[in-house]
Amino acid sequence: PRETGVPPEPVEGSPRVAQIMRFGFPGLDNIRSHKDYIISYDKRNRVPHWVFEHLTRDSCQRTEGVDRANSDFKVDESIHPFFQSSNKDYKYSGFDRGHMAPAGNHRNDQQMCNETFLLSNMAPQVGKGFNRDKWENLERYVRKMTKLYRNVYVCTGPLYLPHMEQDGKMYVKYQVIGQNNVSVPTHFFKVVVGETDSKDLEMEAFVLPNQEIPDNTPLDNFRVPPDSVERAAGLLFFDRLSREKLSRVNGQKTGKSW
Amino acid sequence: PRETGVPPEPVEGSPRVAQIMRFGFPGLDNIRSHKDYIISYDKRNRVPHWVFEHLTRDSCQRTEGVDRANSDFKVDESIHPFFQSSNKDYKYSGFDRGHMAPAGNHRNDQQMCNETFLLSNMAPQVGKGFNRDKWENLERYVRKMTKLYRNVYVCTGPLYLPHMEQDGKMYVKYQVIGQNNVSVPTHFFKVVVGETDSKDLEMEAFVLPNQEIPDNTPLDNFRVPPDSVERAAGLLFFDRLSREKLSRVNGQKTGKSW
Ligand SMILES: [Mg+2]
Ligand SMILES: [Mg+2]
Repeated sequence: PRETGVPPEPVEGSPRVAQIMRFGFPGLDNIRSHKDYIISYDKRNRVPHWVFEHLTRDSCQRTEGVDRANSDFKVDESIHPFFQSSNKDYKYSGFDRGHMAPAGNHRNDQQMCNETFLLSNMAPQVGKGFNRDKWENLERYVRKMTKLYRNVYVCTGPLYLPHMEQDGKMYVKYQVIGQNNVSVPTHFFKVVVGETDSKDLEMEAFVLPNQEIPDNTPLDNFRVPPDSVERAAGLLFFDRLSREKLSRVNGQKTGKSW
Repeated sequence: PRETGVPPEPVEGSPRVAQIMRFGFPGLDNIRSHKDYIISYDKRNRVPHWVFEHLTRDSCQRTEGVDRANSDFKVDESIHPFFQSSNKDYKYSGFDRGHMAPAGNHRNDQQMCNETFLLSNMAPQVGKGFNRDKWENLERYVRKMTKLYRNVYVCTGPLYLPHMEQDGKMYVKYQVIGQNNVSVPTHFFKVVVGETDSKDLEMEAFVLPNQEIPDNTPLDNFRVPPDSVERAAGLLFFDRLSREKLSRVNGQKTGKSW
């Protein structure tokens, strides 16, 4: 059950994990703390369950000399070999190695940037029209929120959504790639909380299909009620933060139905 | 990484969870301890990740008056409402509410039996030819092992196995039922360790498809290498027990390839 208050902003110098996870863990399965993001890894699907980031204007600053070109896509050796994904799984699959925690959010130092290139942080994404386009737009939109909000907290992950087939029944279907059967999610989500200087809290939630999306499709089209993502993902987002404390959800004043 | 020894038999009077989980947890996601079995619940799929039982001749004895007819299929209220399954999900679905920890293993007292009827312990199973037939044969086979072995440890759960389609690509596809989108697994596994009075340890592993199976199909046809189940399930079974300490795997002396 959700708590009823607003956990205070951790004091400066608090462990980074306490800052990033201030509003609660979406789940507790197989968690790893990196320097600037936290991940729960899905050992069955060989992709993340979720990754969590805390963004500020400062944390998104690029330090001179930090460059994603210096980072290599690397097997995460902290994962048991049975459950790792490898570069070979993605090669010739037709899918990009899509960052869940984007490199562009972690340019303070090279190690932070490198850690986003661990293959445990990847899921297979359609390249053109998605990873390199609409999904990247959404990443950029979230990063830009740091210009308006003191703190931005974002949880990102894959979904495997059902669809109805001709027999009238509902099915989940997704491709798996490579020798390690890396799952190709049908959709991806981002659930974001922004906190203003005056401690106003707002939440936004997006679900995008893992497919080529026309460039002129507005991001607003992909807004969804946060609880629909929770049900589909099997996760609870920001559950230490009472939903009643949010002044807006998806840009709408709360108290309305959303 | 697996450990190298054999954890000793917990002394009599040890907590039941220490006895059941003697050889290690297959995973650590969302675990609940019941009186006579342990479960890890899959909040996304609304079925177990795995259930774990420890069977002995005594534990399988039926106490006079204990009867599964006194047990009701009940929603597990300890699960967040977003992730529960309900009787309504199964009704008219065409699938049985298939016990992962079978009622027949827990007849020492009525509460133990009742706890196996929590819907969190269920997954949708084909009824005729599977839940009521071949899968039940396997449950009976495991229970009968207690006549030969001092201790029987068994882990049971669902699988979602990929298949190749005409386009040459691999896909995972499974039905979901009811308003809660309860997943219908493609297969189910049991991985069993038996320990003899002379402390010989043997392992067996079975994977059965969730479909009508002809009655004359021998259970032996469904034996698989334990590590193939581990890779597919994203779990490690009996990982506190060194595989080198096993005298047999699937009835074959070890040292051979299996
Ligand atoms: Mg990307
Ligand atoms: Mg049954």
